[in-house]
Amino acid sequence: MARRLVIIGGDAAGMSAATQARRMKTADELDIVVFERSSRTSWAACGLPYLVGGFVKAPESLIARTPEQHRAKGIDVRTRHEVTAIDVKASTVTVRDLDSGRESAVHYDELLIATGASGISPKWPCMAAKGVLQLRTLDDAAAVERLIAAGARRAVVVGAGYIGLEVAEGLLKRGLHVTVVERLDAPMGSVLDADMALDVAAAMTAAGIDLRLGTAVTGFTEVNGQVTAVDTATGPLQADLVVIGLGVRPNAELARAAGIGVGASGGIQVDDHLRTDTPHIWAAGDCVESRHRMTGRCVVVALGTHANKQGRIVGTNLGGGDAAFGGVLGTAITRFHDTEIARTGLTEQEAAAADLHAIGVTTEASSRAHYYPGAEPMKIKLVVERGTGRLLGAQIVGGAGAGKRIDVLATALWNRMTVAEVAGMDLSYAPPFSPVWDPVLLAAGKAASTD
Amino acid sequence: MARRLVIIGGDAAGMSAATQARRMKTADELDIVVFERSSRTSWAACGLPYLVGGFVKAPESLIARTPEQHRAKGIDVRTRHEVTAIDVKASTVTVRDLDSGRESAVHYDELLIATGASGISPKWPCMAAKGVLQLRTLDDAAAVERLIAAGARRAVVVGAGYIGLEVAEGLLKRGLHVTVVERLDAPMGSVLDADMALDVAAAMTAAGIDLRLGTAVTGFTEVNGQVTAVDTATGPLQADLVVIGLGVRPNAELARAAGIGVGASGGIQVDDHLRTDTPHIWAAGDCVESRHRMTGRCVVVALGTHANKQGRIVGTNLGGGDAAFGGVLGTAITRFHDTEIARTGLTEQEAAAADLHAIGVTTEASSRAHYYPGAEPMKIKLVVERGTGRLLGAQIVGGAGAGKRIDVLATALWNRMTVAEVAGMDLSYAPPFSPVWDPVLLAAGKAASTD
Repeated sequence: MARRLVIIGGDAAGMSAATQARRMKTADELDIVVFERSSRTSWAACGLPYLVGGFVKAPESLIARTPEQHRAKGIDVRTRHEVTAIDVKASTVTVRDLDSGRESAVHYDELLIATGASGISPKWPCMAAKGVLQLRTLDDAAAVERLIAAGARRAVVVGAGYIGLEVAEGLLKRGLHVTVVERLDAPMGSVLDADMALDVAAAMTAAGIDLRLGTAVTGFTEVNGQVTAVDTATGPLQADLVVIGLGVRPNAELARAAGIGVGASGGIQVDDHLRTDTPHIWAAGDCVESRHRMTGRCVVVALGTHANKQGRIVGTNLGGGDAAFGGVLGTAITRFHDTEIARTGLTEQEAAAADLHAIGVTTEASSRAHYYPGAEPMKIKLVVERGTGRLLGAQIVGGAGAGKRIDVLATALWNRMTVAEVAGMDLSYAPPFSPVWDPVLLAAGKAASTD
Repeated sequence: MARRLVIIGGDAAGMSAATQARRMKTADELDIVVFERSSRTSWAACGLPYLVGGFVKAPESLIARTPEQHRAKGIDVRTRHEVTAIDVKASTVTVRDLDSGRESAVHYDELLIATGASGISPKWPCMAAKGVLQLRTLDDAAAVERLIAAGARRAVVVGAGYIGLEVAEGLLKRGLHVTVVERLDAPMGSVLDADMALDVAAAMTAAGIDLRLGTAVTGFTEVNGQVTAVDTATGPLQADLVVIGLGVRPNAELARAAGIGVGASGGIQVDDHLRTDTPHIWAAGDCVESRHRMTGRCVVVALGTHANKQGRIVGTNLGGGDAAFGGVLGTAITRFHDTEIARTGLTEQEAAAADLHAIGVTTEASSRAHYYPGAEPMKIKLVVERGTGRLLGAQIVGGAGAGKRIDVLATALWNRMTVAEVAGMDLSYAPPFSPVWDPVLLAAGKAASTD
């Protein structure tokens, strides 16, 4: 008889695991049941800001695979089904059919928790007012559409992190007046050092965003249930539409309630094979914590890349293979208009917090040969361990062609290279692609001679 | 008294060495004399095709630093001075002033040979006809300009390597009818595997180039000293303008005549500190051979990147520092219209020639999330060692954003990663920059599961 794999959550991690396990095991060997509380599977949440901005036209295009497509591949996907409890001793999950309200217990031989993350939602007054939302689902994007169609003209975005930036760009592109309120003194303050964030702030302001840094939101004002202002310590900001972009936290309650280990980071604890501390229970995606390769500490990095990769690893391990997750570097990239923003490893600030003795070295460079049209300026900051010269992290802010260079530095970090070693590498050069010293080499060379 | 450093050749390697040595040693410590036979220093030969194509407007913009600028930094640059011999025992070079014709012997304490490379120029009939040229100097570019101004309409480019491709693009952009003749059966045949080269051939043909593969040039026809046709084994190709782009060979004769070791590759032999086999004599740039990191063999790779890097290394060593050249991977990039072409490490063909048991795995991917506008297709071929899964090389052909991804693979190669390790890396992702599985990860994952 087939063993049964139950998966809680039908998005990136869950469906990648299901798909990979299905590739490796027949239906006679493994029965795969996925419970998903929404009515969708496998869709690209990271595309939502670009849907709002009109860069992406069709909401359906964000759906990589529908429940029907998964079912056709032999995966028993049950949408609108929420798992409300895990009984570790009985090896069952309690499942509620959200349409009928019926609950039932479902047995598992192996269980994958892929419950994702939820947007951070402070308990501010009037959070429930109409016009205040998070951009987490296609329904949220549709709600933004309706508000704009109904005449919303003044948008306030709360939080200047990745989502805040991307949503602000999108709303600006739609012609709204956009204010971004950020508690910290810089945009991207938790992922870039302040000196690099300055250029991001400048790009936002130049684009016409009313950027309010160092400004704490205290709540909202509503009139007849509709938001009219975001209240801050320095006064109200008028708003017809408010998007909260304060980041996410792992959905680990279900695991915690079942006695499964959850780390101080808030994510479910897993080993490198993505096993939890409880036999036959695995976890993957935004709900887990991952080992940071530079500090060895556990962190939560909610990104589609890790979720997909981890899902596939669990699927491989359940399919009879042997795969391990190598940890994270905190590599990330985004864009605000023509400004590309990327980072990997540790910022100077993070290195200090990890008790590493580091220095930051910033280099200004050009994306192409200076004489070639379209050469764009960029700034690369390398964070280097004093004494060893080991690269600890990198941040890039610049024009077209700047951002993706972070991958070279991420690869260098992955291999624990020193900046002197990086400076010696054989990277590609031709005038339309880089100066003869690629910005990465230039930055590493400068850092090597500084250290 | 100051010691004297004599440098033969005032381009990338020579002037990088001079500049770096000058940074580290005062004029009282080190006298730096550079002999350059042309009237220019430090200019970007790699920009010539883009000058011909009109992408770069001003020839002067290719000059990074003039002789005067170098002199102002305390480097005694003597242009129009050719070194005709090295006397190793006497520690002198014989220098001819090309204007006066006078020769003199100049003493050196340290000597750097940075004589560069020359275009390969077969002994074909009528090679000296007007209208037949190589694109190696700003004067050559000016000659092309004059020929176009005088009414040249039919151009034939001999050789479909980097320069051939770049010049063909430039001439096409200027409105000429362009034929490219290539002895091998594929463009880029010495640097790409045939399967990858197919896409390059398709791009050339689609752009309107008359591409003659597998066609050997036998000579030229001239009328009144002006070229009228390129003769091939399969008949003549009419031409008002012929550009020979057959690659380069190291200018090692001076070294060889002085008894300095020259390798089978044709390049001057140097150790990792760029010392030749003769005391106090160094060599750097296009005239030397370098260790290929994947095979351990010595190869000649004439590229501005290596020349600059090697020059700086010699300068550092002469300045009292300790720097070594890490070898080459054969990383290179170019572009034909919107098609980006890049490679690093070994092709399948080169791996076989190096007696490595390798397979090639080709992956088709997209430069951005499929739903994001401007997503461009690309093909990545990875060459993988059987058994170990070690990455041996990579080739990329694709649209905007494809080419520079080679640097990630070059970094992986530099660190001797396996494809499975590459597939696990934490690379950046956001919809405008890549699919959730970056093409590099996708390709590595496919290769890992194939091996």
